[in-house]
Amino acid sequence: MLQLYGYWRSSAAYRVRIALALKGLAYEYRAVHLARDGGEQNRPGFRALNPEGRVPLLVDGELRLGQSLAILEYLEWRFPEPALVPADPVARIRMLAFCQTIATDIHPLGNLAVLARLQSLGVDPIGRDAWARHWIERGLSALEVETADQPREQAVFGTQPGWADCLLVPQVYNAERFGCDTSGFPRLYELALRCRQHPAFAAAHPAAQPDAPPPA
Amino acid sequence: MLQLYGYWRSSAAYRVRIALALKGLAYEYRAVHLARDGGEQNRPGFRALNPEGRVPLLVDGELRLGQSLAILEYLEWRFPEPALVPADPVARIRMLAFCQTIATDIHPLGNLAVLARLQSLGVDPIGRDAWARHWIERGLSALEVETADQPREQAVFGTQPGWADCLLVPQVYNAERFGCDTSGFPRLYELALRCRQHPAFAAAHPAAQPDAPPPA
Repeated sequence: MLQLYGYWRSSAAYRVRIALALKGLAYEYRAVHLARDGGEQNRPGFRALNPEGRVPLLVDGELRLGQSLAILEYLEWRFPEPALVPADPVARIRMLAFCQTIATDIHPLGNLAVLARLQSLGVDPIGRDAWARHWIERGLSALEVETADQPREQAVFGTQPGWADCLLVPQVYNAERFGCDTSGFPRLYELALRCRQHPAFAAAHPAAQPDAPPPA
Repeated sequence: MLQLYGYWRSSAAYRVRIALALKGLAYEYRAVHLARDGGEQNRPGFRALNPEGRVPLLVDGELRLGQSLAILEYLEWRFPEPALVPADPVARIRMLAFCQTIATDIHPLGNLAVLARLQSLGVDPIGRDAWARHWIERGLSALEVETADQPREQAVFGTQPGWADCLLVPQVYNAERFGCDTSGFPRLYELALRCRQHPAFAAAHPAAQPDAPPPA
Protein backbone atom coordinates (compact mmCIF):
# COMPACT_ATOMS: atom_id res chain seq x y z
CA MET A 1 0.00 0.00 0.00
CA LEU A 2 1.14 3.57 -0.67
CA GLN A 3 2.46 5.40 2.36
CA LEU A 4 2.28 9.15 2.70
CA TYR A 5 4.38 10.93 5.29
CA GLY A 6 2.72 14.23 5.95
CA TYR A 7 1.69 16.85 8.45
CA TRP A 8 -1.88 18.02 8.78
CA ARG A 9 -1.10 21.67 8.09
CA SER A 10 1.66 21.25 5.48
CA SER A 11 0.16 22.63 2.33
CA ALA A 12 2.53 20.60 0.16
CA ALA A 13 1.25 17.40 1.82
CA TYR A 14 -2.32 18.72 1.45
CA ARG A 15 -1.80 18.93 -2.35
CA VAL A 16 -0.84 15.27 -2.50
CA ARG A 17 -3.74 14.20 -0.26
CA ILE A 18 -6.16 15.91 -2.66
CA ALA A 19 -4.64 14.12 -5.67
CA LEU A 20 -4.77 10.75 -3.90
CA ALA A 21 -8.41 11.35 -2.97
CA LEU A 22 -9.38 12.49 -6.48
CA LYS A 23 -7.86 9.29 -7.84
CA GLY A 24 -9.60 7.22 -5.15
CA LEU A 25 -6.33 5.75 -3.91
CA ALA A 26 -6.07 4.22 -0.46
CA TYR A 27 -2.88 4.99 1.47
CA GLU A 28 -1.39 4.72 4.90
CA TYR A 29 -0.93 8.16 6.45
CA ARG A 30 2.14 8.64 8.62
CA ALA A 31 2.17 11.87 10.54
CA VAL A 32 5.47 13.75 10.97
CA HIS A 33 5.02 16.55 13.48
CA LEU A 34 6.92 19.50 12.03
CA ALA A 35 6.71 21.70 15.10
CA ARG A 36 7.19 19.32 18.05
CA ASP A 37 10.57 18.80 19.76
CA GLY A 38 12.54 20.69 17.11
CA GLY A 39 10.63 18.91 14.36
CA GLU A 40 10.22 15.19 13.85
CA GLN A 41 11.34 15.71 10.26
CA ASN A 42 14.84 16.36 11.58
CA ARG A 43 15.19 13.03 13.38
CA PRO A 44 17.76 10.64 11.91
CA GLY A 45 15.09 8.02 11.22
CA PHE A 46 13.13 10.37 8.98
CA ARG A 47 16.23 11.93 7.42
CA ALA A 48 17.26 8.44 6.34
CA LEU A 49 13.99 8.25 4.38
CA ASN A 50 14.12 11.83 3.12
CA PRO A 51 17.50 13.60 3.37
CA GLU A 52 15.76 16.93 2.80
CA GLY A 53 13.83 16.49 6.04
CA ARG A 54 10.55 17.59 4.53
CA VAL A 55 7.05 16.35 3.95
CA PRO A 56 5.35 15.11 1.88
CA LEU A 57 7.22 11.91 1.22
CA LEU A 58 5.55 9.16 -0.77
CA VAL A 59 6.72 5.57 -0.37
CA ASP A 60 5.64 3.00 -2.95
CA GLY A 61 7.51 -0.26 -2.47
CA GLU A 62 11.20 0.53 -3.02
CA LEU A 63 10.52 4.08 -4.20
CA ARG A 64 10.84 7.02 -1.83
CA LEU A 65 9.80 10.28 -3.41
CA GLY A 66 9.75 13.78 -1.99
CA GLN A 67 8.58 17.04 -3.62
CA SER A 68 4.84 17.34 -4.07
CA LEU A 69 4.94 18.14 -7.79
CA ALA A 70 7.16 15.14 -8.50
CA ILE A 71 4.72 13.02 -6.49
CA LEU A 72 1.81 14.34 -8.58
CA GLU A 73 3.74 13.37 -11.74
CA TYR A 74 4.38 9.92 -10.32
CA LEU A 75 0.74 9.35 -9.37
CA GLU A 76 -0.31 10.47 -12.85
CA TRP A 77 2.01 7.97 -14.47
CA ARG A 78 1.23 5.08 -12.13
CA PHE A 79 -2.52 5.66 -11.75
CA PRO A 80 -3.61 7.54 -14.89
CA GLU A 81 -7.36 7.49 -14.17
CA PRO A 82 -8.97 9.86 -13.54
CA ALA A 83 -6.50 12.20 -15.23
CA LEU A 84 -5.60 15.33 -13.27
CA VAL A 85 -3.89 17.01 -16.22
CA PRO A 86 -5.23 17.93 -19.66
CA ALA A 87 -4.48 15.53 -22.52
CA ASP A 88 -3.37 18.38 -24.77
CA PRO A 89 0.39 18.93 -24.25
CA VAL A 90 0.32 22.72 -24.34
CA ALA A 91 -2.69 22.90 -21.99
CA ARG A 92 -0.84 20.52 -19.67
CA ILE A 93 2.24 22.74 -19.69
CA ARG A 94 0.14 25.82 -19.04
CA MET A 95 -1.35 24.06 -16.00
CA LEU A 96 2.15 23.13 -14.91
CA ALA A 97 3.28 26.77 -15.10
CA PHE A 98 0.33 27.73 -12.87
CA CYS A 99 1.40 25.07 -10.36
CA GLN A 100 5.04 26.15 -10.48
CA THR A 101 4.10 29.73 -9.66
CA ILE A 102 2.44 28.53 -6.46
CA ALA A 103 5.15 25.98 -5.71
CA THR A 104 8.12 28.28 -6.28
CA ASP A 105 7.05 31.91 -5.97
CA ILE A 106 4.40 31.75 -3.25
CA HIS A 107 4.49 28.72 -1.02
CA PRO A 108 8.21 28.45 -0.10
CA LEU A 109 8.21 31.96 1.32
CA GLY A 110 5.49 31.16 3.84
CA ASN A 111 6.49 27.74 5.06
CA LEU A 112 7.13 26.99 8.70
CA ALA A 113 10.94 26.74 8.56
CA VAL A 114 11.22 29.96 6.56
CA LEU A 115 8.99 31.94 8.91
CA ALA A 116 10.88 30.60 11.93
CA ARG A 117 14.19 31.67 10.39
CA LEU A 118 12.77 35.09 9.63
CA GLN A 119 11.99 35.49 13.32
CA SER A 120 15.50 34.38 14.24
CA LEU A 121 16.75 37.34 12.15
CA GLY A 122 14.82 39.67 14.43
CA VAL A 123 11.67 40.11 12.34
CA ASP A 124 8.68 40.34 14.68
CA PRO A 125 5.45 38.34 14.22
CA ILE A 126 3.67 41.31 12.60
CA GLY A 127 6.43 41.74 10.02
CA ARG A 128 6.60 37.99 9.48
CA ASP A 129 2.88 37.68 8.73
CA ALA A 130 2.94 40.75 6.47
CA TRP A 131 5.81 39.09 4.59
CA ALA A 132 3.76 35.91 4.08
CA ARG A 133 0.72 37.90 2.97
CA HIS A 134 2.76 39.91 0.48
CA TRP A 135 3.94 36.86 -1.49
CA ILE A 136 0.55 35.17 -1.43
CA GLU A 137 -1.37 38.25 -2.59
CA ARG A 138 1.22 39.11 -5.25
CA GLY A 139 1.34 35.58 -6.65
CA LEU A 140 -2.36 34.74 -6.62
CA SER A 141 -3.24 38.10 -8.17
CA ALA A 142 -0.86 37.37 -11.05
CA LEU A 143 -2.41 33.93 -11.49
CA GLU A 144 -5.87 35.51 -11.54
CA VAL A 145 -4.77 37.56 -14.57
CA GLU A 146 -3.07 34.55 -16.18
CA THR A 147 -6.27 32.51 -16.02
CA ALA A 148 -8.74 35.29 -16.81
CA ASP A 149 -9.60 33.60 -20.13
CA GLN A 150 -10.88 30.48 -18.37
CA PRO A 151 -14.62 29.93 -17.81
CA ARG A 152 -15.99 30.35 -14.30
CA GLU A 153 -16.47 26.65 -13.86
CA GLN A 154 -15.68 24.03 -11.30
CA ALA A 155 -11.92 24.14 -11.76
CA VAL A 156 -9.02 26.50 -12.51
CA PHE A 157 -8.75 25.05 -16.01
CA GLY A 158 -11.85 23.48 -17.54
CA THR A 159 -14.54 21.68 -15.60
CA GLN A 160 -12.80 18.84 -13.76
CA PRO A 161 -10.41 19.37 -10.85
CA GLY A 162 -6.76 18.89 -11.73
CA TRP A 163 -3.28 19.70 -10.49
CA ALA A 164 -3.99 23.44 -10.55
CA ASP A 165 -6.82 22.94 -8.05
CA CYS A 166 -4.66 20.60 -5.94
CA LEU A 167 -2.24 23.50 -5.54
CA LEU A 168 -4.72 26.37 -5.36
CA VAL A 169 -6.89 25.08 -2.52
CA PRO A 170 -4.05 24.62 0.03
CA GLN A 171 -2.62 28.01 -0.94
CA VAL A 172 -5.97 29.68 -0.32
CA TYR A 173 -6.13 27.87 3.02
CA ASN A 174 -2.81 29.56 3.85
CA ALA A 175 -4.09 32.89 2.54
CA GLU A 176 -6.92 32.67 5.05
CA ARG A 177 -4.61 31.68 7.89
CA PHE A 178 -2.53 34.79 7.29
CA GLY A 179 -5.55 37.04 6.80
CA CYS A 180 -4.78 37.93 3.18
CA ASP A 181 -6.81 40.41 1.21
CA THR A 182 -8.45 38.16 -1.41
CA SER A 183 -9.88 41.00 -3.52
CA GLY A 184 -7.03 40.69 -6.04
CA PHE A 185 -8.03 37.15 -6.99
CA PRO A 186 -11.83 36.87 -6.76
CA ARG A 187 -12.27 34.06 -9.30
CA LEU A 188 -9.57 31.87 -7.80
CA TYR A 189 -10.82 32.53 -4.29
CA GLU A 190 -14.39 31.56 -5.18
CA LEU A 191 -13.15 28.50 -7.01
CA ALA A 192 -11.19 27.37 -3.97
CA LEU A 193 -14.25 27.78 -1.76
CA ARG A 194 -16.31 25.76 -4.21
CA CYS A 195 -13.69 23.02 -4.50
CA ARG A 196 -13.73 22.59 -0.74
CA GLN A 197 -17.25 21.20 -1.00
CA HIS A 198 -16.02 18.37 -3.22
CA PRO A 199 -15.66 15.14 -1.19
CA ALA A 200 -12.03 14.54 -2.24
CA PHE A 201 -11.01 18.05 -1.19
CA ALA A 202 -12.95 17.72 2.05
CA ALA A 203 -11.23 14.44 2.91
CA ALA A 204 -7.82 16.03 2.30
CA HIS A 205 -8.49 19.13 4.43
CA PRO A 206 -5.99 19.69 7.27
CA ALA A 207 -8.70 19.58 9.94
CA ALA A 208 -9.77 16.11 8.72
CA GLN A 209 -6.34 14.54 9.31
CA PRO A 210 -5.64 12.20 12.22
CA ASP A 211 -2.77 14.42 13.44
CA ALA A 212 -4.87 17.61 13.52
CA PRO A 213 -5.51 18.96 16.99
CA PRO A 214 -9.08 18.44 18.24
CA PRO A 215 -11.43 21.36 17.48
CA ALA A 216 -11.28 24.03 20.18
CA MET B 1 12.07 32.36 -33.84
CA LEU B 2 11.91 31.64 -30.12
CA GLN B 3 12.25 34.68 -27.89
CA LEU B 4 13.64 34.49 -24.40
CA TYR B 5 13.13 37.36 -21.98
CA GLY B 6 15.84 37.07 -19.38
CA TYR B 7 18.36 38.82 -17.21
CA TRP B 8 22.02 37.91 -17.23
CA ARG B 9 22.17 37.03 -13.53
CA SER B 10 18.72 35.45 -13.09
CA SER B 11 19.47 31.84 -12.34
CA ALA B 12 16.03 30.75 -13.54
CA ALA B 13 16.77 32.32 -16.95
CA TYR B 14 20.25 30.75 -16.85
CA ARG B 15 18.61 27.28 -16.57
CA VAL B 16 16.61 27.88 -19.71
CA ARG B 17 19.62 29.26 -21.62
CA ILE B 18 21.52 26.05 -20.83
CA ALA B 19 18.66 23.88 -22.09
CA LEU B 20 18.33 25.93 -25.28
CA ALA B 21 22.08 25.65 -25.88
CA LEU B 22 22.15 21.89 -25.18
CA LYS B 23 19.40 21.47 -27.76
CA GLY B 24 21.21 23.73 -30.22
CA LEU B 25 18.22 26.06 -30.53
CA ALA B 26 18.63 29.59 -31.83
CA TYR B 27 16.64 32.28 -30.03
CA GLU B 28 16.32 36.01 -29.73
CA TYR B 29 17.45 37.20 -26.30
CA ARG B 30 15.53 40.12 -24.81
CA ALA B 31 17.09 41.54 -21.70
CA VAL B 32 14.84 42.71 -18.85
CA HIS B 33 16.89 44.60 -16.30
CA LEU B 34 15.60 43.44 -12.91
CA ALA B 35 17.45 46.01 -10.85
CA ARG B 36 17.24 49.23 -12.89
CA ASP B 37 14.60 51.93 -12.26
CA GLY B 38 12.54 49.80 -9.91
CA GLY B 39 12.84 46.83 -12.24
CA GLU B 40 11.93 46.69 -15.91
CA GLN B 41 9.91 43.54 -15.11
CA ASN B 42 7.39 45.78 -13.34
CA ARG B 43 6.67 47.97 -16.35
CA PRO B 44 3.17 47.64 -17.82
CA GLY B 45 4.55 46.50 -21.18
CA PHE B 46 6.29 43.53 -19.63
CA ARG B 47 3.48 42.80 -17.18
CA ALA B 48 1.16 42.49 -20.17
CA LEU B 49 3.40 39.69 -21.44
CA ASN B 50 3.94 38.11 -18.05
CA PRO B 51 1.53 39.15 -15.27
CA GLU B 52 3.90 37.67 -12.69
CA GLY B 53 6.54 40.22 -13.67
CA ARG B 54 9.33 37.66 -13.72
CA VAL B 55 11.92 36.22 -16.02
CA PRO B 56 12.41 33.91 -17.79
CA LEU B 57 9.57 34.23 -20.22
CA LEU B 58 9.59 32.19 -23.42
CA VAL B 59 7.60 33.35 -26.42
CA ASP B 60 6.97 30.90 -29.26
CA GLY B 61 4.46 32.32 -31.71
CA GLU B 62 1.22 32.81 -29.79
CA LEU B 63 2.49 31.05 -26.68
CA ARG B 64 3.87 33.03 -23.74
CA LEU B 65 5.26 30.81 -21.03
CA GLY B 66 6.83 31.71 -17.70
CA GLN B 67 8.31 29.44 -15.03
CA SER B 68 11.61 27.84 -15.96
CA LEU B 69 10.56 24.25 -15.25
CA ALA B 70 7.44 24.61 -17.38
CA ILE B 71 9.65 26.05 -20.13
CA LEU B 72 11.98 23.04 -19.87
CA GLU B 73 8.95 20.74 -20.22
CA TYR B 74 7.78 22.69 -23.27
CA LEU B 75 11.19 22.57 -24.95
CA GLU B 76 11.35 18.84 -24.30
CA TRP B 77 8.00 18.30 -25.95
CA ARG B 78 8.59 20.64 -28.89
CA PHE B 79 12.24 19.79 -29.54
CA PRO B 80 12.77 16.27 -28.19
CA GLU B 81 16.35 15.83 -29.43
CA PRO B 82 18.73 15.66 -27.70
CA ALA B 83 16.66 14.51 -24.72
CA LEU B 84 17.41 16.26 -21.43
CA VAL B 85 15.44 13.78 -19.34
CA PRO B 86 15.80 10.00 -18.96
CA ALA B 87 13.49 7.82 -21.05
CA ASP B 88 12.60 5.67 -18.04
CA PRO B 89 9.57 7.24 -16.31
CA VAL B 90 10.74 6.66 -12.74
CA ALA B 91 14.25 7.95 -13.50
CA ARG B 92 12.63 10.99 -15.09
CA ILE B 93 10.52 11.63 -12.01
CA ARG B 94 13.55 11.24 -9.76
CA MET B 95 15.34 13.88 -11.83
CA LEU B 96 12.26 16.08 -11.56
CA ALA B 97 12.28 15.79 -7.77
CA PHE B 98 15.93 16.90 -7.77
CA CYS B 99 14.99 19.91 -9.89
CA GLN B 100 12.01 20.76 -7.69
CA THR B 101 14.18 20.81 -4.59
CA ILE B 102 16.35 23.49 -6.20
CA ALA B 103 13.40 25.34 -7.73
CA THR B 104 11.23 25.40 -4.60
CA ASP B 105 13.38 24.93 -1.50
CA ILE B 106 16.59 26.72 -2.45
CA HIS B 107 16.31 29.25 -5.24
CA PRO B 108 13.19 31.26 -4.29
CA LEU B 109 14.70 32.16 -0.93
CA GLY B 110 17.72 33.84 -2.51
CA ASN B 111 16.19 35.72 -5.40
CA LEU B 112 16.56 39.44 -5.83
CA ALA B 113 13.02 40.48 -4.85
CA VAL B 114 13.09 38.28 -1.74
CA LEU B 115 16.44 39.60 -0.55
CA ALA B 116 15.32 43.18 -1.15
CA ARG B 117 12.19 42.57 0.90
CA LEU B 118 14.23 41.01 3.67
CA GLN B 119 16.24 44.24 3.87
CA SER B 120 13.05 46.28 3.97
CA LEU B 121 12.15 44.33 7.13
CA GLY B 122 15.32 45.62 8.75
CA VAL B 123 17.60 42.64 8.11
CA ASP B 124 21.12 43.93 7.41
CA PRO B 125 23.26 42.77 4.45
CA ILE B 126 25.23 40.35 6.66
CA GLY B 127 22.05 38.68 7.92
CA ARG B 128 20.60 38.69 4.42
CA ASP B 129 23.60 36.89 2.90
CA ALA B 130 23.73 34.39 5.80
CA TRP B 131 20.06 33.67 5.11
CA ALA B 132 20.77 32.97 1.42
CA ARG B 133 23.75 30.75 2.31
CA HIS B 134 21.71 28.77 4.82
CA TRP B 135 19.10 27.63 2.28
CA ILE B 136 21.65 26.87 -0.42
CA GLU B 137 23.92 24.83 1.86
CA ARG B 138 21.00 22.98 3.44
CA GLY B 139 19.38 22.13 0.13
CA LEU B 140 22.46 21.15 -1.87
CA SER B 141 23.76 19.00 1.00
CA ALA B 142 20.48 17.08 1.02
CA LEU B 143 20.69 16.63 -2.75
CA GLU B 144 24.27 15.34 -2.36
CA VAL B 145 22.92 12.56 -0.13
CA GLU B 146 19.96 11.91 -2.46
CA THR B 147 22.27 11.35 -5.43
CA ALA B 148 25.08 9.51 -3.60
CA ASP B 149 24.25 6.33 -5.54
CA GLN B 150 25.04 7.98 -8.87
CA PRO B 151 28.41 7.45 -10.59
CA ARG B 152 30.91 10.31 -10.56
CA GLU B 153 30.36 11.04 -14.20
CA GLN B 154 29.69 14.02 -16.38
CA ALA B 155 26.20 14.70 -15.08
CA VAL B 156 24.07 14.58 -11.93
CA PHE B 157 22.27 11.52 -13.29
CA GLY B 158 24.08 9.33 -15.81
CA THR B 159 26.58 10.58 -18.35
CA GLN B 160 24.78 13.20 -20.42
CA PRO B 161 23.74 16.61 -19.11
CA GLY B 162 20.02 16.93 -18.39
CA TRP B 163 17.54 19.05 -16.48
CA ALA B 164 19.28 18.34 -13.18
CA ASP B 165 22.47 19.90 -14.51
CA CYS B 166 20.52 22.83 -15.99
CA LEU B 167 19.35 23.58 -12.44
CA LEU B 168 22.49 22.65 -10.53
CA VAL B 169 24.96 24.85 -12.38
CA PRO B 170 23.10 28.16 -11.86
CA GLN B 171 22.52 27.27 -8.20
CA VAL B 172 26.23 26.64 -7.69
CA TYR B 173 26.91 29.98 -9.39
CA ASN B 174 24.69 31.55 -6.71
CA ALA B 175 26.43 29.52 -4.00
CA GLU B 176 29.72 31.07 -5.06
CA ARG B 177 28.24 34.57 -5.20
CA PHE B 178 27.11 34.26 -1.60
CA GLY B 179 30.35 32.62 -0.46
CA CYS B 180 28.76 29.31 0.57
CA ASP B 181 30.69 26.53 2.21
CA THR B 182 30.65 23.85 -0.49
CA SER B 183 32.10 21.07 1.68
CA GLY B 184 28.64 19.58 2.27
CA PHE B 185 28.15 18.82 -1.43
CA PRO B 186 31.56 17.92 -2.89
CA ARG B 187 30.30 15.72 -5.75
CA LEU B 188 27.69 18.22 -6.92
CA TYR B 189 30.16 21.09 -6.63
CA GLU B 190 32.79 19.29 -8.73
CA LEU B 191 30.16 18.31 -11.26
CA ALA B 192 29.05 21.91 -11.63
CA LEU B 193 32.63 23.04 -12.19
CA ARG B 194 33.09 20.33 -14.83
CA CYS B 195 29.82 21.19 -16.57
CA ARG B 196 30.94 24.78 -16.92
CA GLN B 197 33.61 23.66 -19.37
CA HIS B 198 30.92 22.28 -21.70
CA PRO B 199 30.30 24.71 -24.60
CA ALA B 200 26.53 24.85 -24.01
CA PHE B 201 26.99 25.73 -20.35
CA ALA B 202 29.70 28.26 -21.21
CA ALA B 203 27.43 29.99 -23.76
CA ALA B 204 24.66 30.24 -21.16
CA HIS B 205 26.86 31.67 -18.39
CA PRO B 206 25.71 35.03 -17.01
CA ALA B 207 28.98 36.77 -17.93
CA ALA B 208 28.51 35.72 -21.58
CA GLN B 209 25.14 37.48 -21.95
CA PRO B 210 24.74 40.75 -23.86
CA ASP B 211 23.23 42.49 -20.83
CA ALA B 212 26.08 41.54 -18.49
CA PRO B 213 28.20 44.47 -17.34
CA PRO B 214 31.64 44.64 -18.95
CA PRO B 215 34.39 42.84 -16.96
CA ALA B 216 35.91 45.13 -14.32
